[in-house]
Amino acid sequence: MSKIHSVIAAIALAGTSSAVLSQALPTTAPAPADNPTTPQKVALGKMLFHDPRLSSSGTVSCASCHNTMLGGEDNRAGSVGVEAQVGGRSAPTVWNAAFNKVQFWDGRAASLEEQAAGPVTNPIEMGMKSWNDVVSRLETIEGYQIAFKKAFGTETISKDNATKAIAAYERTLITPNSPYDKYVKGDKKALTEQQVRGMNLAVEIGCTGCHSGPAFNGPGTFQKFPINYNGYLEAQYDFKKDTGLAEVTGKKEDEHLWKVPTLRNIALTAPYFHNGKIKTLDKAVKLMAKMQLDKNLSKEEISDIVAFLDALTGEFPKQEMPTLPPTTGTTFNK
Amino acid sequence: MSKIHSVIAAIALAGTSSAVLSQALPTTAPAPADNPTTPQKVALGKMLFHDPRLSSSGTVSCASCHNTMLGGEDNRAGSVGVEAQVGGRSAPTVWNAAFNKVQFWDGRAASLEEQAAGPVTNPIEMGMKSWNDVVSRLETIEGYQIAFKKAFGTETISKDNATKAIAAYERTLITPNSPYDKYVKGDKKALTEQQVRGMNLAVEIGCTGCHSGPAFNGPGTFQKFPINYNGYLEAQYDFKKDTGLAEVTGKKEDEHLWKVPTLRNIALTAPYFHNGKIKTLDKAVKLMAKMQLDKNLSKEEISDIVAFLDALTGEFPKQEMPTLPPTTGTTFNK
Repeated sequence: MSKIHSVIAAIALAGTSSAVLSQALPTTAPAPADNPTTPQKVALGKMLFHDPRLSSSGTVSCASCHNTMLGGEDNRAGSVGVEAQVGGRSAPTVWNAAFNKVQFWDGRAASLEEQAAGPVTNPIEMGMKSWNDVVSRLETIEGYQIAFKKAFGTETISKDNATKAIAAYERTLITPNSPYDKYVKGDKKALTEQQVRGMNLAVEIGCTGCHSGPAFNGPGTFQKFPINYNGYLEAQYDFKKDTGLAEVTGKKEDEHLWKVPTLRNIALTAPYFHNGKIKTLDKAVKLMAKMQLDKNLSKEEISDIVAFLDALTGEFPKQEMPTLPPTTGTTFNK
Repeated sequence: MSKIHSVIAAIALAGTSSAVLSQALPTTAPAPADNPTTPQKVALGKMLFHDPRLSSSGTVSCASCHNTMLGGEDNRAGSVGVEAQVGGRSAPTVWNAAFNKVQFWDGRAASLEEQAAGPVTNPIEMGMKSWNDVVSRLETIEGYQIAFKKAFGTETISKDNATKAIAAYERTLITPNSPYDKYVKGDKKALTEQQVRGMNLAVEIGCTGCHSGPAFNGPGTFQKFPINYNGYLEAQYDFKKDTGLAEVTGKKEDEHLWKVPTLRNIALTAPYFHNGKIKTLDKAVKLMAKMQLDKNLSKEEISDIVAFLDALTGEFPKQEMPTLPPTTGTTFNK
């Protein structure tokens, strides 16, 4: 099925809320055959995810922009990498990223493993010159030799194993038991009347054409954004400046195609859209209805949908802080 | 007792290792009368300590430079604050800082509470314009209103309460049960023969004149550094460029006076000295013996003392990651 066909199929699925919205968030995420989730890999991945020594300056970890103590990102329009460089896209949340079909805003990575390899060597993110340099640095840290051995049965540290461990950890970052999850499991009091109104409206106007399923990021994978648009809006928001998937493929047909992002915990992850230009959820809802569905929502309608989106905030599992193995004799002196 | 007198008294105390080195690290830290340690304050302080929203850019938390997942600092010569600005002194460890008599390298803060107020509004560290701005930002976060209420019985958020909570949390950051602690408690096998040799040598040559007591940072408070010095060394290390306490007081007599830093976990906190110019512990030991005690140590002697210092690495308590309360509608967009 082509990308556009999958979009059409998704829209065709829109119907009543009970038919369209019925799936609670799973409490475990599926893992690829070549990277089964194990406690040892998760432990190693958690260390690597939070270790600023994976960056050139020793100051930026995966968690710096995908903050696991917050909503899985940094509440910034563009994240800050090494040397205070600011990225062009707003960091997507790492919570429930395991349920994305593709990763990055432009969907250029097919898996969490592939995604994890990217920022580390991105010059404006973590700034390492190469994964060989990352591996060399990790090899100097005895505690990592031990942790890799436990996780993979070998002390050999590699990009492949490091990204597998990070992905295994990320698969544990799931926020179940939101009011919405309780509701679809049968607790009809878990949502307020306003939230139910907002849910029904979201289905009725077609939000769920793209945002349904347990993570509200399917059934399709990519979607064009923005659709109904004009120069007046562009002057304010610059949404078309970045062409999304086409920046990777160079193909005309991929222009302005974006991964459909999850709506889980969306109330926690302002600012919104790929460039983080929109600070509040009500503004984001209003613009999405206008640009994607050609609908002008009333204040009350926006408020109802926002109330429903608030019901997608889940429970964040308690996590133990990793103890990072010490560096000895190697520092980030200039 | 004047600063210099306290130094002399400290040196006079040097003697045999069993007399000088006999104190294990306490497992709890004393708290000031106006800030008793409570679980609610510790929980709030842990949140604040790890919250990057206490910085102007939303990217730098206390933990960015005083990394609680590592040895309590960042393994850098100068820490990196907002806008990639680099500080002039190497971040001291937060682990066991509760046992310092004064805080900061120059000892300019008399308490953890006073210290905690500093970096937040330092323009090259966390860059907030004022504590009023910090308070205003925290006030917009509902979860903090709740946490302050739990900790202090009032929803009023203030600099005073915020720094008290951070200090209360820091008082829990203690690393007991190092091999040395086990040794002084009676387990004579906890140290290797080499470590015992190193310990005895440290006492014999006078290291313990300044570095004794449970945290190896007393009995005095300040010490002159460097003492035996020359232009050749200065050309390499720039140790005298920064005048320490005199930078604060402007007094000639305070030039090159520094807080005696703890030696606890010193193996984890490279690079060394106030300016972080020395990358390895053996080099640091060699230079300290030469500059402070006018001793030329052999390679074996250095190695013995380093082995002893390794025995000061304690057990790091497991900590639960704080869940930071969400920001809604306020972001760090420019």
